[in-house]
Amino acid sequence: MKVGLIGLGLMGHGMGESLLRGGHELTVYNRTASKADALVAKGARLAKSPADACRGDLVVTMVADDAALEEVTFGAHGILENLSAGAIHVSASTISVALAERLTDEHAKAGQHFVSAPVFGRPQVAAAGQLNILAAGAADPVQRAMPVLESMGQKVWPFGERPSAANLVKLSGNFMIFAAVEALAESIALLRKAGVDEHAFVDMMTNTLFAAPIYKIYAPLITKQQYRPPGFAAPLGAKDTRLALAAGESLNVPLPLASLVRDKFLALLARGGEGDDIAALGKVAAEQAGM
Amino acid sequence: MKVGLIGLGLMGHGMGESLLRGGHELTVYNRTASKADALVAKGARLAKSPADACRGDLVVTMVADDAALEEVTFGAHGILENLSAGAIHVSASTISVALAERLTDEHAKAGQHFVSAPVFGRPQVAAAGQLNILAAGAADPVQRAMPVLESMGQKVWPFGERPSAANLVKLSGNFMIFAAVEALAESIALLRKAGVDEHAFVDMMTNTLFAAPIYKIYAPLITKQQYRPPGFAAPLGAKDTRLALAAGESLNVPLPLASLVRDKFLALLARGGEGDDIAALGKVAAEQAGM
Amino acid sequence: MKVGLIGLGLMGHGMGESLLRGGHELTVYNRTASKADALVAKGARLAKSPADACRGDLVVTMVADDAALEEVTFGAHGILENLSAGAIHVSASTISVALAERLTDEHAKAGQHFVSAPVFGRPQVAAAGQLNILAAGAADPVQRAMPVLESMGQKVWPFGERPSAANLVKLSGNFMIFAAVEALAESIALLRKAGVDEHAFVDMMTNTLFAAPIYKIYAPLITKQQYRPPGFAAPLGAKDTRLALAAGESLNVPLPLASLVRDKFLALLARGGEGDDIAALGKVAAEQAGM
Amino acid sequence: MKVGLIGLGLMGHGMGESLLRGGHELTVYNRTASKADALVAKGARLAKSPADACRGDLVVTMVADDAALEEVTFGAHGILENLSAGAIHVSASTISVALAERLTDEHAKAGQHFVSAPVFGRPQVAAAGQLNILAAGAADPVQRAMPVLESMGQKVWPFGERPSAANLVKLSGNFMIFAAVEALAESIALLRKAGVDEHAFVDMMTNTLFAAPIYKIYAPLITKQQYRPPGFAAPLGAKDTRLALAAGESLNVPLPLASLVRDKFLALLARGGEGDDIAALGKVAAEQAGM
Repeated sequence: MKVGLIGLGLMGHGMGESLLRGGHELTVYNRTASKADALVAKGARLAKSPADACRGDLVVTMVADDAALEEVTFGAHGILENLSAGAIHVSASTISVALAERLTDEHAKAGQHFVSAPVFGRPQVAAAGQLNILAAGAADPVQRAMPVLESMGQKVWPFGERPSAANLVKLSGNFMIFAAVEALAESIALLRKAGVDEHAFVDMMTNTLFAAPIYKIYAPLITKQQYRPPGFAAPLGAKDTRLALAAGESLNVPLPLASLVRDKFLALLARGGEGDDIAALGKVAAEQAGM
Repeated sequence: MKVGLIGLGLMGHGMGESLLRGGHELTVYNRTASKADALVAKGARLAKSPADACRGDLVVTMVADDAALEEVTFGAHGILENLSAGAIHVSASTISVALAERLTDEHAKAGQHFVSAPVFGRPQVAAAGQLNILAAGAADPVQRAMPVLESMGQKVWPFGERPSAANLVKLSGNFMIFAAVEALAESIALLRKAGVDEHAFVDMMTNTLFAAPIYKIYAPLITKQQYRPPGFAAPLGAKDTRLALAAGESLNVPLPLASLVRDKFLALLARGGEGDDIAALGKVAAEQAGM
Repeated sequence: MKVGLIGLGLMGHGMGESLLRGGHELTVYNRTASKADALVAKGARLAKSPADACRGDLVVTMVADDAALEEVTFGAHGILENLSAGAIHVSASTISVALAERLTDEHAKAGQHFVSAPVFGRPQVAAAGQLNILAAGAADPVQRAMPVLESMGQKVWPFGERPSAANLVKLSGNFMIFAAVEALAESIALLRKAGVDEHAFVDMMTNTLFAAPIYKIYAPLITKQQYRPPGFAAPLGAKDTRLALAAGESLNVPLPLASLVRDKFLALLARGGEGDDIAALGKVAAEQAGM
Repeated sequence: MKVGLIGLGLMGHGMGESLLRGGHELTVYNRTASKADALVAKGARLAKSPADACRGDLVVTMVADDAALEEVTFGAHGILENLSAGAIHVSASTISVALAERLTDEHAKAGQHFVSAPVFGRPQVAAAGQLNILAAGAADPVQRAMPVLESMGQKVWPFGERPSAANLVKLSGNFMIFAAVEALAESIALLRKAGVDEHAFVDMMTNTLFAAPIYKIYAPLITKQQYRPPGFAAPLGAKDTRLALAAGESLNVPLPLASLVRDKFLALLARGGEGDDIAALGKVAAEQAGM
């Protein structure tokens, strides 16, 4: 397909590689154009504006946050004004439920389609085309976007016709990750202060009841106190927790564990953790225990 | 070996089966003697008192809580007065760190040995000899207890020479379970109230980042709101959380996530959940969201 | 002075009465014009738009929330476009720190002045001119606004030259109120379930260490379970807590007690409390204790 | 009356002065006898054991915690074995509800009476006979103890015939204090980090809605960061919070705000606060905000 891709951070870059490998005719845009060099070298066309990446059947966005997506969509030379009638905006960013709903409405008014397709997976996974992709939107545009999604992901998980559902699922999934990290952080602080071998604890847990990727990734980072460079940056963790809480607030759903995680992230950021991984919740727990 | 087993609840019974299968010469004791019938039919000898189960090289205890273990150990006709010098008390119950330390001291004074060997696994797993066993204690008695532990477990995880270390690891592990259940409870409440398919969410999560036994067990219980009969009873969850918090308190380690879980368990018990599984934290989250 | 007043809810109406009593030449505006009748009968002039209330030296706004203040300020026929150069916008509403900062900037660009003057006190107190007013802004406009503030308040508490400081103080003060109510709610739930006389408890506390207006107001509402009609409506409590948390978030200040209160408010709203007073946190505590 | 007094810490000493001033025939006991010197110089008789202080109609105990009260009551030469039939044990210490219930039962079995009379007030207040005393117990012994209570307190607040009710009220009252301190701690941290004058905030609050002794005492300690020497020591705050939580747990009453305070106290103790006042919750809040 003729595909635009806006946002070439680590994740977007990886997705671009997968799209090229999938045989799509790819146009890429990034605010800092030099980040597009590697993809251009592999055959992508360079767009000079978001508008310029909107000439195909479908444009994928993968940007940092709500503000960035609002700018490329609603701003000057933006997607909304330039995407063809009937074409599809596939949003892969982790954004708020409220923005997903606004995008759904605005694109519909413009005769365009909006599909939410947030992803799980790190940059290497994106580059390998092995993401897990949560897709929600009207049946026809989702169906038409499927070749693109399948180029980027090992599996597409459908979440119905309301695009924001996929965003809420993504935020819930990230919240589950933060909760797992906080549980590890507290457990490991307790064991360490008690003089019990926390590595043995982690070895046992991640080979039995908690033998899941998320624990195998984060538990060793905490026991080794290896918080930089970030794989999942703490400020993004704080942001996503805020978005989950905002979703809960709009529905009157209290999320006390998310509130707890939020306060821990703020303490982390306040105490020098801007450049840390979310695993540094382990540092906060240790500090509060006087270690 | 010549082994005593005190405490024939669901778990103790299963462990008894594994001990018989392992070829040990087994004497069993339970306050309600009739619970011993099935094991006696398979060849176990019935003891009339804890003392009567202490005539061998080693006695295993698997009872409900600190109070029960104190009674069979320190009470009349108890283990402490009747175990031979040099013999071993293997405690498999989930008890407090403080009691484990007291038992270590008291058995040492009496010329006996104390080994902590709390377990992960449900009754069927115990009966199949497939428990995961956390063992801590002086090297020699742990070594001597190994044939018994190996009859009951698929794997023995060593945690050093201080018996209470294994208890702290067990409490930390249970806390991790409760934290995972609470995270699921909140996520699922949020998705359900938003009208998003929580079953699809669980399916995705437990097949990707959270593909671990604990999530595969508890997530469906929460989405199906299937809280009875309990596999892990809510009052035991409350008790174990209390023990983890007490361990933290004695070391000045704040555990805010454990505090949160404690308050949720209390709300559950206050609102009719005495007979529920710990998965019923899902009910508490839903009720607080007005569902 | 020649004063405009925008927003005639219960509070705004009371402030209008005090302004008339203070001898000011008052023009009033409210979206629903009929709410102005009583003040017009006492001598106020009725404005047909916010613009129409901006013809004097100073306009006071007292509206429900950020959105309402944004509309009357930045909307069509709004304050920003119509206030004279050198005139003053005095904002008495409980709004976000972020909006106060935006208003400060926008009014400065327009050659106007912005003074934040949020208030403590209920409608009767406003009508009696006995509010406590927190005032912040550049020295000259605050000085010029003083006759107006003094007509409405028993005391003006200065908080420096940055207008948003007064807003943060107001949000902090409201947070203190919610914290006091939550502490009462939990204490009273505990005593009630224990069968201890909670009225005697409240009588003792509010006549000794806690002999302050806030406890004398809220403690009896909770012991009598008298939650309607609201004096301070629960949805406003939820909103103000959100604004306090947002202020904390922007500065990386964790506020775990505010987070706790937020979740309690959401539970209250989720369970039928939209029409309740903030005292109904007492109901949430009681319900979670199974009463 | 012929009165014994056991426990001559700062509080007990002050109570002893008031008892002497009240004309009672006073016998005093303290583990470290030298602490009795000042009272002996004023006319008190020195007892060599708790038993020796039990020869009158009534013995007052004012000791540090449950363990200390258990020792002087149930230990060798203790109150239980030596108090005359019909005589009264008045317990003024802040102890657990569970111990108060045990004391009620044990004294009843011994033909003695138990009255709970925990107090609010600091050492100088005790010495001035101006305490607020919460009294609960059977009507007759409370009536007989009244002259003693009135010598020590400005007012006796009755809480019915079950002694432990007064203890629960005392724990609830202390929890209210800690909650107030935590609310101040978070507010002041927020304002300080925002660059807003926290002294002006405190001045305003403690002269308006929060014009109560507790806020006038603690708010300046926090704004001045004056945490030593302790008036109310942080370890005692942690202990009392634990007792409040234990009371809640036994009744299935979640107390999330008490849980939060507990975790803050643990963080304080873990980070060097053993010698601090409870006001040092302000330090914890500031540190978590990166100050």
